Amino acid sequence: MSKEEEAKKLAGRAAVENHVKNNQVLGIGSGSTIVHAVQRIAERVKQENLNLVCIPTSFQARQLILQYGLTLSDLDRHPEIDLAIDGADEVDADLNLIKGGGGCLTQEKIVAGYASRFIVIADFRKDSKNLGDQWHKGIPIEVIPMAYVPVSRAVTQKFGGEIELRMAINKAGPVVTDNGNFILDWKFDRVHKWSEVNTTIKMIPGVVDTGLFINMAERVYFGMQDGSVNMREKPFC
Amino acid sequence: MSKEEEAKKLAGRAAVENHVKNNQVLGIGSGSTIVHAVQRIAERVKQENLNLVCIPTSFQARQLILQYGLTLSDLDRHPEIDLAIDGADEVDADLNLIKGGGGCLTQEKIVAGYASRFIVIADFRKDSKNLGDQWHKGIPIEVIPMAYVPVSRAVTQKFGGEIELRMAINKAGPVVTDNGNFILDWKFDRVHKWSEVNTTIKMIPGVVDTGLFINMAERVYFGMQDGSVNMREKPFC
Repeated sequence: MSKEEEAKKLAGRAAVENHVKNNQVLGIGSGSTIVHAVQRIAERVKQENLNLVCIPTSFQARQLILQYGLTLSDLDRHPEIDLAIDGADEVDADLNLIKGGGGCLTQEKIVAGYASRFIVIADFRKDSKNLGDQWHKGIPIEVIPMAYVPVSRAVTQKFGGEIELRMAINKAGPVVTDNGNFILDWKFDRVHKWSEVNTTIKMIPGVVDTGLFINMAERVYFGMQDGSVNMREKPFC
Repeated sequence: MSKEEEAKKLAGRAAVENHVKNNQVLGIGSGSTIVHAVQRIAERVKQENLNLVCIPTSFQARQLILQYGLTLSDLDRHPEIDLAIDGADEVDADLNLIKGGGGCLTQEKIVAGYASRFIVIADFRKDSKNLGDQWHKGIPIEVIPMAYVPVSRAVTQKFGGEIELRMAINKAGPVVTDNGNFILDWKFDRVHKWSEVNTTIKMIPGVVDTGLFINMAERVYFGMQDGSVNMREKPFC
């Protein structure tokens, strides 16, 4: 296992160890790091006979829940989530996140948004002082397909930088999200006031949501290169 | 033709008379009133040999554009619209609108949002001092299907009133929008600060857009019962 993969595993297992309890409704994130968390959840369910219900943030998360024999539910049946665990593409010093490298930002924000506690797991490469220090693929913006051109223009006119429509690799054409929309990757060229940027962009007609998760994460576990886990949390938590 | 239909025709034709000019990119709204505007646009194109390009707000608008032999385009090719004309379910004294009775609110807001001028046409029944005076079906909110239950709870917890998932009449199940989403109809129980409400609701995870059009309409033409047309515009325009 690579150093990065080992670090993801450490972070995922630490979060499950410290936060998962019996009788919880869990939100299950997407990406490569969450796999390790789900593995550890499944172990604990068997060992401790835990009664848990899992809400997925994507097709991938749903498949993971089923593959590991966990109890699948949804927000219709369980609109209040006790604990959501998810990865991130980058985390800044204030625990603001960029998410959506895997294209599931909107469903991830929905699940995190209705969770009492939202815990992030990541490897050491995702830890930044400012967004953009480590992550160079920009902030994803999910858009209604008919509006991708004027949304691109509106975002760069307001905030600078460059925007690309995310293209699929194994089909001719753009990536289509689990919600049937397109993704714009906005490569910003400076540090912004992210809360304002997030609100301004979300209010642009045609924007479904952004990959900026502001004031949502309560705590982040970073798996480190030396095999340790660094935890960072919000001062007020 | 009923009084209401006659009034819609008066409003639609007045807006086209006063605002449509040669070489414009037009946004074409949805609903029953827009039909009269499109008829008049088609007449003028023939009579005056106008060169116009039309961007639809819905499947219905697209069909109208084609049916009347107008030039169909989209926001990819024409991301800047000169003039958008659309109906409304209700118009208040400040020209705030409720739209989306026909379920096309998101695409209508996209087209209006990228138009230099946004002109509304309506019959006398849509003219209110406060939103809710005349229109009792509430404010539509387009939502990602997985989030309709927690969004409903969030809106009523914040602002009171009642919410219903809009059900289809000719199929078993909910209305699905042209974007593949659901519509919640929020029956509010008092007059709110609509700009704040609009921003707060749009920022709720899972909300795609609302049927509140705040500070967007520049001018409204109301067809009246006596055969006249009342025009109202923003003071600063």
